[in-house]
Amino acid sequence: MKNAVVLLSGGLDSATVLAMAHAQGYTCYALSVDYGQRHHSELAAAQRVAETLGAREHRVVNIDLTGFGGSALTDNNIDVPEHASAGIPLTYVPARNTIMLSLALAWAEVLRAQDIFIGVNAVDYSGYPDCRPAYIDAFERMANLATQAAVEGHPLTLHAPLLHLSKAEIIQKGSSLGVDYAATVSCYQADDLGQACGVCDSCRLRSAGFSAAGVSDPTRYRKIN
Amino acid sequence: MKNAVVLLSGGLDSATVLAMAHAQGYTCYALSVDYGQRHHSELAAAQRVAETLGAREHRVVNIDLTGFGGSALTDNNIDVPEHASAGIPLTYVPARNTIMLSLALAWAEVLRAQDIFIGVNAVDYSGYPDCRPAYIDAFERMANLATQAAVEGHPLTLHAPLLHLSKAEIIQKGSSLGVDYAATVSCYQADDLGQACGVCDSCRLRSAGFSAAGVSDPTRYRKIN
Repeated sequence: MKNAVVLLSGGLDSATVLAMAHAQGYTCYALSVDYGQRHHSELAAAQRVAETLGAREHRVVNIDLTGFGGSALTDNNIDVPEHASAGIPLTYVPARNTIMLSLALAWAEVLRAQDIFIGVNAVDYSGYPDCRPAYIDAFERMANLATQAAVEGHPLTLHAPLLHLSKAEIIQKGSSLGVDYAATVSCYQADDLGQACGVCDSCRLRSAGFSAAGVSDPTRYRKIN
Repeated sequence: MKNAVVLLSGGLDSATVLAMAHAQGYTCYALSVDYGQRHHSELAAAQRVAETLGAREHRVVNIDLTGFGGSALTDNNIDVPEHASAGIPLTYVPARNTIMLSLALAWAEVLRAQDIFIGVNAVDYSGYPDCRPAYIDAFERMANLATQAAVEGHPLTLHAPLLHLSKAEIIQKGSSLGVDYAATVSCYQADDLGQACGVCDSCRLRSAGFSAAGVSDPTRYRKIN
């Protein structure tokens, strides 16, 4: 059994990735990051998902990014957009995936894991630069120069198995692996109960994905006045 | 005046880099990371250095790496080596520079800074993989695929001005810029007063550097029984 670190936000995509890594026979160490995100209830979802999908261990690392701000997810003075717009949306968090992957890299090295999984997607996504194939390739290349493990002949593979899938394909894949999407939280402004707004970018992508997949949407939406 | 983020550990090298960046006309934002390091007193040194060398602001980000462990600096069950040895020493902290640079990248993007400075050195150093030129190049390349700033035409330059200098050259450079090395802490097992052991890898490199530079060593060594 090979160890893998799986970044687990608590959302639909990373839950699917955890199920995929588990199905491939990896012993999965799930890593979540409490960075002061507005949708803090995704972390409770991550815990549920990790337990349900067979993670060996689930850790939450705290790193407060609200001091830097610069995103609707880390600065309460910036509203989460509720309509589609051109360009990179305000929910982009500066260097978030780089920070999370660097933490995953640290844990992987200690665990002697040579595999990290991340649920980035470049099809039905918000246009974040750190979800693109070229970024993933560059991070892997950098990581293989960064660690003692790599120097000593144990290189890292960074897996992004959702990169080229549509949201519908992701949902179909996860459903076939038994992922309970009702336990996941994708909404950028989910409330403390994990109930979704239904109008943010993440909700719209998720909802359209269930429709396109022909799968009943189990998301719990809250009532908006 | 251009903004720059300068990683500042509180040691000799990063203090020199801060002085160099300041001398080049950058408005410097100094970033330290409290990762649970054994030599915690380096953070007090970083604060002194930041104030003395004209940093516009100094921030300390907390991220506990002791949960991962895997290093003599983050696991109290692993002793700091007090003699030179072959290979990468036990003081190597998994992915430390990658984590610190990713935090610097986040702050730089929010500050609209296109320059990050780091005091890595590949001459008189401990052999850490994440201090090598190829690593620095790969991080910069990755960073320029990671951020909204880069996508929108504001690429990042990662400066490692000490990379090819000897420790003596670093000390001469810093001395010429007015760095007070008495305020810095390099020792891996410095006590709470910042007093150095004199025998760890970092102390030996530092001491030899002052000798070779012909500069009086201002380090405060503690008495060892």
